[in-house]
Amino acid sequence: MRKIIDLNCDMGEGFGHWVLSEAPDEELMALISSANIAAGFHAGDPNSMDRVIKLAQDYGVGLGAHPGYRDLQGFGRRYIKTTPEELVNDIIYQVGAVREFGRRHGIRLQHVKPHGALYMEAAVNEELSRHMIESLAAISGDLLIFCMGASKTYEVAKRLGQPVIREFYADRDYGDDGSIVFTRRVARPSPEEIAQKCLRACVEGKVTTVTGKDIDIEFESICFHSDTPGAVDIGRAIRAALTENGINIAPASAVLETA
Amino acid sequence: MRKIIDLNCDMGEGFGHWVLSEAPDEELMALISSANIAAGFHAGDPNSMDRVIKLAQDYGVGLGAHPGYRDLQGFGRRYIKTTPEELVNDIIYQVGAVREFGRRHGIRLQHVKPHGALYMEAAVNEELSRHMIESLAAISGDLLIFCMGASKTYEVAKRLGQPVIREFYADRDYGDDGSIVFTRRVARPSPEEIAQKCLRACVEGKVTTVTGKDIDIEFESICFHSDTPGAVDIGRAIRAALTENGINIAPASAVLETA
Amino acid sequence: MRKIIDLNCDMGEGFGHWVLSEAPDEELMALISSANIAAGFHAGDPNSMDRVIKLAQDYGVGLGAHPGYRDLQGFGRRYIKTTPEELVNDIIYQVGAVREFGRRHGIRLQHVKPHGALYMEAAVNEELSRHMIESLAAISGDLLIFCMGASKTYEVAKRLGQPVIREFYADRDYGDDGSIVFTRRVARPSPEEIAQKCLRACVEGKVTTVTGKDIDIEFESICFHSDTPGAVDIGRAIRAALTENGINIAPASAVLETA
Amino acid sequence: MRKIIDLNCDMGEGFGHWVLSEAPDEELMALISSANIAAGFHAGDPNSMDRVIKLAQDYGVGLGAHPGYRDLQGFGRRYIKTTPEELVNDIIYQVGAVREFGRRHGIRLQHVKPHGALYMEAAVNEELSRHMIESLAAISGDLLIFCMGASKTYEVAKRLGQPVIREFYADRDYGDDGSIVFTRRVARPSPEEIAQKCLRACVEGKVTTVTGKDIDIEFESICFHSDTPGAVDIGRAIRAALTENGINIAPASAVLETA
Repeated sequence: MRKIIDLNCDMGEGFGHWVLSEAPDEELMALISSANIAAGFHAGDPNSMDRVIKLAQDYGVGLGAHPGYRDLQGFGRRYIKTTPEELVNDIIYQVGAVREFGRRHGIRLQHVKPHGALYMEAAVNEELSRHMIESLAAISGDLLIFCMGASKTYEVAKRLGQPVIREFYADRDYGDDGSIVFTRRVARPSPEEIAQKCLRACVEGKVTTVTGKDIDIEFESICFHSDTPGAVDIGRAIRAALTENGINIAPASAVLETA
Repeated sequence: MRKIIDLNCDMGEGFGHWVLSEAPDEELMALISSANIAAGFHAGDPNSMDRVIKLAQDYGVGLGAHPGYRDLQGFGRRYIKTTPEELVNDIIYQVGAVREFGRRHGIRLQHVKPHGALYMEAAVNEELSRHMIESLAAISGDLLIFCMGASKTYEVAKRLGQPVIREFYADRDYGDDGSIVFTRRVARPSPEEIAQKCLRACVEGKVTTVTGKDIDIEFESICFHSDTPGAVDIGRAIRAALTENGINIAPASAVLETA
Repeated sequence: MRKIIDLNCDMGEGFGHWVLSEAPDEELMALISSANIAAGFHAGDPNSMDRVIKLAQDYGVGLGAHPGYRDLQGFGRRYIKTTPEELVNDIIYQVGAVREFGRRHGIRLQHVKPHGALYMEAAVNEELSRHMIESLAAISGDLLIFCMGASKTYEVAKRLGQPVIREFYADRDYGDDGSIVFTRRVARPSPEEIAQKCLRACVEGKVTTVTGKDIDIEFESICFHSDTPGAVDIGRAIRAALTENGINIAPASAVLETA
Repeated sequence: MRKIIDLNCDMGEGFGHWVLSEAPDEELMALISSANIAAGFHAGDPNSMDRVIKLAQDYGVGLGAHPGYRDLQGFGRRYIKTTPEELVNDIIYQVGAVREFGRRHGIRLQHVKPHGALYMEAAVNEELSRHMIESLAAISGDLLIFCMGASKTYEVAKRLGQPVIREFYADRDYGDDGSIVFTRRVARPSPEEIAQKCLRACVEGKVTTVTGKDIDIEFESICFHSDTPGAVDIGRAIRAALTENGINIAPASAVLETA
């Protein structure tokens, strides 16, 4: 049973006058322990980054860069066919922008989590994962990489010795192979149901898949999404369920140190 | 008479498949001592930044961020009316991206030089210069600010105690008030004429204006532009004229240390 | 007293996954008689344009292009200093895109209304208004130009004989000179108050300014904004107040024909 | 043997201050009979479109829209995974923009040729080709579709009865299956060699592939690229070889009429 877990959320996913989530950034930031900051290519702009990264500092939340494909139109959810070299340059660019606002607000960069289609591509593309992790390792050997447990990203990070954080998806469904599946549900799970799913995953290390089967799951961080309807309620329910059962919520770097 | 001077040039000002200058980056980099790297908003992309910043490291050239207005269409030469806060966020974002590629290639960030209309706006907008310099000072107290001597940027940097570099424009004409003027000339000056203008400015501290008058000029760096036709020849001529007359060319940080 | 008036609204002002207004497009479209379609430079993308222009056809609403500055970051509310030639090229580009989706959905282009800072700039910049109107006239002599009555745009259109529509701003405050002023109010006016203001402007040709003075006002169209909170209620209240008092709401082209 | 053939070239493929080709637009326009105008998503902007489309009118060249993926960074050469609906909206948007500048300069839209990765994707993606052609047919039944002979685009256009133009690539190599292959050559073919290849394809209907085999080839237009080094010389050589052998060069619409 886990005694300490990270709780992460994507933050600052608007652009210019547009916002993605109706959940107030400050309420979310008060609930989580790591934040993935949209860095300008799929969402986020210098103004949102400045604002949200200051909030991360205010609330003692671990700072993460959330680089995506250069695709504002598709919110970084569209695969773009290009070389690992080009994608890693995109990642370094966005990581640097996040890190600089961190310098401004006195908070160091804790982790990198690719966004959307880039995250999914890295999960199956070993060459991309390797080039990304080698490049980030050369810059900052202590930068945590966020990924799915069932991914090339995880395998490569372990092999190369880069610290890595596996995520459990609170508001996504699981397939029998441990991957995330997109389903059309009759009813959306309640915050309490989501919280119980997270608690069970922490305590028993198990999650029920879309076929009704139980599978083992390992992770160091729980992820929920700021644009899932009721995000603040979901965050509150997860936090309450975990802390009431003796599980501390702390930034990913602290979770790794206790591992 | 100056014994040491910086020689700077804007670099990496293409985007995607497009290039601005026909001058080979490597030939230019071999001639200069500080490079201003286009950082993505008016020109430059992660691929060009990676390539050019590696070259700066290879040639021992001082690394500078060259942030511009968010204006690929207008190459950052169009004034955009907005708040200093928003512009400084744009600058921090771009500075961070340049610094990160510097980390990758083992070269620290030496300076910041705003580009085009942003440079000209800061020159006359005291509030913008102040907000920019205070913000950069809070992040990196040793970051050099490049500007014109006759500018609010210079006044504010001196007042706030931020290290500052005044530029002499090799390939631009001067007005009687020391400002840069855009003229239509019958004949373009030869590389040798440009070099002599630079040498005289270093030795005598004087430049002849468009009205034929001599004015005093003070500076720590000479700037020429990679998209001026014959840029490599101009760079070579300047370098030859200066070194043959006992003036060392060195990165701006070294120039300041000897001041 | 007016017997027929146009009621216009900006539509499709999201981008990619982002929306601006919580008001459902279809509910708004059912209330208005002319729609200004965001065309991609400050907001709007090919998907939103396709969807909203189809709705305009479904509801018999006059189709308008709503071109803006190339400024997604600033939502086209930031002035960009450039030439009239360049801005008119931007306008023609965006007008063509809107017109093409109109062809697809069987609805012809009725009008052009510049957006935000471009609208305000044209209002005071006679050269821009002239170049815009001459260019649009050469393409489509019957294209209506939307503008403020107190503007260079109106003067130039009248002089050049291009059909022109003056707007009354339902959800904005007026200064004593007939211009729009941005004020911080203690209380937001109710939909009913807004509707009464519109009705009075139609019946008496008068509006009360922020100083409490009554001024004369002439117009052929009433504008309200889809991102004003309660936009659907405002649209309903205006429509009810006008129609209950014998004023027909019809597309701007029909209003002009009866003038 | 063909008596009449179209000669097409991509035009206006710069962006803002950047140009792609060193070949002067006007010299190229004097040589070709159809122009594919970059329309803003992968290259081209309202200023380049206005300028180049006016040239097309001046030289009696058939006007074509050259829509691409939304990818300035990758020049539209990177596949983006998305729905046919979204891509067709992108195409309609860009087609409309080109058509509007055509209205301005008194030249009607002759054809549509998707660019780069979008052209290649349509060639193998029947659903995309079908949705594109059905959508364009509904707007303009006489709009010509440019494509490779060995493509789904050609098959679908023929089946749906939309007029279609097959291209022969002057400056690309052919595989045994009639597809274009990218090879690294020791020596670039001379303009004269390219011209002879085109002449033979017109006269004998044959082309030699990279394996040295002769295959049959059918086409109504010859394409060469403005960014191939020596583009003007290539265009001149092709034009000379064809006209000296009694083959007229005329816009694609004229070629179809004589078929």
